[in-house]
Amino acid sequence: MNVIGVTGMPGSGKSVVSRVADSLGMKVVRMGDVIRNEAQKRNEAPGKVAVELRQEYGEFIVAERCVEYIKNFSTSGVGHSNKPQKDKSPVFLIEGIRSPWEVQIFKKNFPNFKVIAIHSAPKTRYIRLKKRMRSDDSAEAKEAQKRDQRELKFGIGEVIASADFMVVNESAKGKLKNTVRGILKNELQNSC
Amino acid sequence: MNVIGVTGMPGSGKSVVSRVADSLGMKVVRMGDVIRNEAQKRNEAPGKVAVELRQEYGEFIVAERCVEYIKNFSTSGVGHSNKPQKDKSPVFLIEGIRSPWEVQIFKKNFPNFKVIAIHSAPKTRYIRLKKRMRSDDSAEAKEAQKRDQRELKFGIGEVIASADFMVVNESAKGKLKNTVRGILKNELQNSC
Repeated sequence: MNVIGVTGMPGSGKSVVSRVADSLGMKVVRMGDVIRNEAQKRNEAPGKVAVELRQEYGEFIVAERCVEYIKNFSTSGVGHSNKPQKDKSPVFLIEGIRSPWEVQIFKKNFPNFKVIAIHSAPKTRYIRLKKRMRSDDSAEAKEAQKRDQRELKFGIGEVIASADFMVVNESAKGKLKNTVRGILKNELQNSC
Repeated sequence: MNVIGVTGMPGSGKSVVSRVADSLGMKVVRMGDVIRNEAQKRNEAPGKVAVELRQEYGEFIVAERCVEYIKNFSTSGVGHSNKPQKDKSPVFLIEGIRSPWEVQIFKKNFPNFKVIAIHSAPKTRYIRLKKRMRSDDSAEAKEAQKRDQRELKFGIGEVIASADFMVVNESAKGKLKNTVRGILKNELQNSC
């Protein structure tokens, strides 16, 4: 089974990768959704819950829940009733990998697992975060720096430094999409 | 004074950046030289001395020695006897930044300090490291992975994740040189 992970600092443009993957027929799994669902249940901020979840269930909890979901999906064939792919199993894209331990979990479960990192300069990311207004996005530069620090504490820097693909996202959204489409199409062709 | 730092995992191609900087008239300061000189004195492996130096003098020692060198160079004007630049102070390029603490030191001393990160996939880097044979390069993939871990322990992942410029180095050396030349020329124009 082919599984690709996406990582990147806040505001780098991870969600664009998911949209491209989706348009190519990949199955997108958002690690943030595991956290956001839990945050809604607890009525707390997602950033806080991301830390709490790991404190309660260990470093691997979010990754483990994703692995479980992918394995269940593959065996049950959910979502494939209309278009059964007999020759190829679906390719999964996991958005929002944060720690090297998560990478280890995915590599253990999916030996061909690869990581795509999206990079933008802090200056660029902070401008984008200011423009957006999702509940866990930070409006102010100081808040954005704090959020960066929280991500870095998870070890996201190691994941980015060791990524199999690095995509720079400083210019127009169209350019990022084209680059990502090229990488993902190639991975789809190589999937088995 | 304009100072630019270069970071990247082993085998990513940091030294190409230094050669481009040199060709543009920048003054290149290699953090590795501080360590290699000390290693020669101690008759020990550079990787080991990199750890020892920091244990003996603290996290900041290599960065502090570089700051000292740059400040002395600027006031004494060493190397500028033939081509005195009255209108512009030299632009320095520091090769081999490893930790966020080093970045802090440089930012404190040089407020316009920026970081360029070079990224290559682990697979690409291990092939390059195998081809090279510098004393602190590792021939085997396992050794290369160990070396990666040592660099990551310094916090190089955080430096890469937070870099102001990211240059991907997967293809021909010429492409890397052109990209880096573009970034550095722009910085030279903006230097004061």
